Amino acid sequence: MNHFADRLLAAVNDCGNPVCVGLDPRFDLLPQALKDKAVEIHGHTPKAIAHAFLEFNRAILEALSGIVRVCKPQIAFYEELGAEGIRCYAETIALAQQKGFLVISDAKRGDIGTTAVAYARAHLGGKAITGGVTLGFDADALTVNPYMGHDTITPYLEICATNGKGIFVLVKTSNAGSGDIQDLDAGGKPVYEYVAEMVNKLGDAHRGANGYSSVGAVVAATYPEQARRLRELLPRALFLVPGYGAQGATAEDCMASFNADGQGAVVNASRSIIFAFKQEPYASTLGELGFADAARAAAVKMAEELKSAHRHH
Amino acid sequence: MNHFADRLLAAVNDCGNPVCVGLDPRFDLLPQALKDKAVEIHGHTPKAIAHAFLEFNRAILEALSGIVRVCKPQIAFYEELGAEGIRCYAETIALAQQKGFLVISDAKRGDIGTTAVAYARAHLGGKAITGGVTLGFDADALTVNPYMGHDTITPYLEICATNGKGIFVLVKTSNAGSGDIQDLDAGGKPVYEYVAEMVNKLGDAHRGANGYSSVGAVVAATYPEQARRLRELLPRALFLVPGYGAQGATAEDCMASFNADGQGAVVNASRSIIFAFKQEPYASTLGELGFADAARAAAVKMAEELKSAHRHH
Repeated sequence: MNHFADRLLAAVNDCGNPVCVGLDPRFDLLPQALKDKAVEIHGHTPKAIAHAFLEFNRAILEALSGIVRVCKPQIAFYEELGAEGIRCYAETIALAQQKGFLVISDAKRGDIGTTAVAYARAHLGGKAITGGVTLGFDADALTVNPYMGHDTITPYLEICATNGKGIFVLVKTSNAGSGDIQDLDAGGKPVYEYVAEMVNKLGDAHRGANGYSSVGAVVAATYPEQARRLRELLPRALFLVPGYGAQGATAEDCMASFNADGQGAVVNASRSIIFAFKQEPYASTLGELGFADAARAAAVKMAEELKSAHRHH
Repeated sequence: MNHFADRLLAAVNDCGNPVCVGLDPRFDLLPQALKDKAVEIHGHTPKAIAHAFLEFNRAILEALSGIVRVCKPQIAFYEELGAEGIRCYAETIALAQQKGFLVISDAKRGDIGTTAVAYARAHLGGKAITGGVTLGFDADALTVNPYMGHDTITPYLEICATNGKGIFVLVKTSNAGSGDIQDLDAGGKPVYEYVAEMVNKLGDAHRGANGYSSVGAVVAATYPEQARRLRELLPRALFLVPGYGAQGATAEDCMASFNADGQGAVVNASRSIIFAFKQEPYASTLGELGFADAARAAAVKMAEELKSAHRHH
């Protein structure tokens, strides 16, 4: 199995952009026709919502296929539906991989030893527990929360090595409150730098042919100064960069997360791509029925903005 | 709907002990007869494992009914099975509540705004999204990770208030690596004290008739000195105390997490109760087939140890 970092950079180079599309469906925001059809088939049930989510994701993935090569479903929106939502999550991951996407499972899991192993198996291709049965999901990478310490990160590393998978550890997140804990000054440097050191140390032994590690970092575009510093501290970590688009960061803000050669990061956008049909100019020109075309146009625009920012950087 | 803290303390007072049983099933550790039967019915499938988990949980909950009133399923062990596991998780929660248990969903979720709302709806009784359909699980409380800051905690508070639910925020966890981030010295006090201040501030407006808040804290028994300090800082937070039993903490170690009146905490044990049949004296006297009786005996012993420690404290 190829190393995750090699697979990710190959995918980015193949399509020529580092866009990651966030598959964060919400029933109230879906095109009415999709909602009506799902309710017609399954009634007012969790299954109907899961059905609509899958059809929405399918259309988005088809429209983006070949243009974008990385996607990141946010499990919370599926978990909300219980078992039917989790089935849809697994189906979405499989569908995306069939269409050539690498999938980052955005679950931000964090727990001790045996529990972390269970999460790793759940998200990153579990080993058989009984008679060769395949369990959980088979995403390419998982986001992980570091608050509980290094021994809650290490259990993922073996499964990453065995299965060619990766993790992205939360270092500096995009939200306003990210400063509460992450920015606390501990002996002259912020807490998130200690997390970065942990990422660096744990990831060093897990580098691929291109030098990048399977232990990556979540570093928000909304704090470019901090991202610049983290890029220095973590030259060989892949960055998963949230905050672009609906959360307010620009393509220029994202540049701090790339290495000098323009490599080493993927930039996520969720709402600004998948719900682009609700925004101008797409709302007027394409409308609800053109939601997948609007997503493609928004992704192409984002890819161009990132390319332009790279050129001027 | 009654306030979560009132419900929790009423349950503890009703059964006379603060034991919380962790429902963390693992297929390789289940009694052989349960495994064989599940595979006989469902073959080598995730459904078979989920079936065995549910039957195991059912027997444990029946054996402990009335003796213990709080349980805490760890979702990772269910998530590992994908959709079938999540169905089992939902069924376990409903079954436990039918048998008079309060259920703490141990999922340690943490994410921004709309995503946190989705997690809150998933675990703490969601509002209808379409046509009155019930979504996700309906646990009584959820564990929450604070690394991303206050704005990732606040989204839970409204649903807690509306639905009579609670959260337990990770403050100081039981594992060896908990010091890596939580113990960092930030201006003369450790990071976990900043988290405690956040818990105190957010929880103050959410107190029940007994004065305790629906915003609780996870405080490990394995670090009694820190627990004592946190009990001072958080007089009105309920503590969920991991680390007793298989993780090495004694009943005496747990005392630091209680207030002077002996109230304000529940103490979790998972393996030492549910897999008691693998340990002496239960392995010899009760054996595999007596696993539920062994769990009851271990829970009674734990309750007595905690009572004895309270008397000597």
